[in-house]
Amino acid sequence: MVGQRMNLILLDPEEIDSSGHAVLSDSRAAHIREVLNAVPEKTVRVGLVNGPLGVGTVKRSAPDRVVLSCAFKGKAPPRPRIDLLLALPRPKVMKRLWAPLASLGVGHIILTAAWKVERNYFDTHVLDPAFYTPLLKEGLQQARDTRLPCVTVHRRFNVLLKDELDRLFPAGMRWIADPESAPRWPPIRKRSSARALLAIGPEGGWTEYERDLLRAHGFKSISLGPRPLRTDVACIALLTMAHHRLFKR
Amino acid sequence: MVGQRMNLILLDPEEIDSSGHAVLSDSRAAHIREVLNAVPEKTVRVGLVNGPLGVGTVKRSAPDRVVLSCAFKGKAPPRPRIDLLLALPRPKVMKRLWAPLASLGVGHIILTAAWKVERNYFDTHVLDPAFYTPLLKEGLQQARDTRLPCVTVHRRFNVLLKDELDRLFPAGMRWIADPESAPRWPPIRKRSSARALLAIGPEGGWTEYERDLLRAHGFKSISLGPRPLRTDVACIALLTMAHHRLFKR
Repeated sequence: MVGQRMNLILLDPEEIDSSGHAVLSDSRAAHIREVLNAVPEKTVRVGLVNGPLGVGTVKRSAPDRVVLSCAFKGKAPPRPRIDLLLALPRPKVMKRLWAPLASLGVGHIILTAAWKVERNYFDTHVLDPAFYTPLLKEGLQQARDTRLPCVTVHRRFNVLLKDELDRLFPAGMRWIADPESAPRWPPIRKRSSARALLAIGPEGGWTEYERDLLRAHGFKSISLGPRPLRTDVACIALLTMAHHRLFKR
Repeated sequence: MVGQRMNLILLDPEEIDSSGHAVLSDSRAAHIREVLNAVPEKTVRVGLVNGPLGVGTVKRSAPDRVVLSCAFKGKAPPRPRIDLLLALPRPKVMKRLWAPLASLGVGHIILTAAWKVERNYFDTHVLDPAFYTPLLKEGLQQARDTRLPCVTVHRRFNVLLKDELDRLFPAGMRWIADPESAPRWPPIRKRSSARALLAIGPEGGWTEYERDLLRAHGFKSISLGPRPLRTDVACIALLTMAHHRLFKR
């Protein structure tokens, strides 16, 4: 992993025993020992997956394991208010996107087929939860968040749009990234609960049929301007702008 | 090279002979043949490095080379109005940043030392123009631009700030990315010639001394909010926002 930092040590609920202790022996232990230089009684930021933040006190720091005594406080951080509808990129790109997506904050990652998405992209290990969950957690530890994005995979674009989307994303703004449109964003409702679903097409773009179907289902064009960007760069840029638009004062 | 597309075939002036023909035998030729399926008399978008855009007509398409007849028109696209002052990231991160930086549009990439930048980062091939120029060109071909970013490397932060910066960036807004500050951007002058210099610190942040020196030299805090991001993700996110702020209507 490139330059990934753990600004938070993320723990699964089942890693914590009834007295609040967690015994770590993986990369988190190595990070606590070697990067945070945590000696006994030093504290580190911790978080519970999909739960609250807290403080972990180092009880033991040995080459083979680190023992933390954890105290969590308050509620879980709010779920990110942006969801992503992404035409599945090639596996190499998807692989490098998992951590950045989690670090930028996405509630639900809806991966879909499209005319210009090769079918065999769906058969790779990159879509295996055992592969991507650790990458999503890396992104959360970088960004100091605990909310694991929900991920669903949809092999039929038509079925997704016509039968499933209203259940997956019942209320909120729907935006389609469109390099052809003017760099303008539709006006937004500034309610604190407002959500937005951002649709990003495949490397070669949506077909006219797909674009029409998205528009018929309420997606409004947004754009970053005339420069076509690589899918991974576009995802980061568009999520940044979407968050900015939604939270703008 | 992940998902890089050539939305433009970029040519060096010395590749074009007096009759306007260019003979290509590298990845551009392969792209013209295999992705654009360009047969004789088909046209492709071309651009001259730091010069105008134009049209290339395929004159010959053979397995070993492609011959284009090029016609350029008008002026070069404007130079991007954002410059970047970046504390040199580790080589692996810098390597993957070159193409995205060029694709997002940066006029001048000023790479600097900082307290938390390891000295040996400066001795790698990643800072060799022969290594990074092809990557910058990839980014330009993706984004359909011809303006090659200017790159300078500064091993002494103090000297850069005190003696060199006013010459490198004589007029414009200076912004420092500061995760601690509120997600707010200082008001901007909306002149069409306005430029901005965006300073992004090392993985572990600027020291207090460095931050003070930047502030003393006119840098104002900007922020994307409280989520700490990996350097490469932060660069893309901050450049996106900087362009948006500068061009906002």
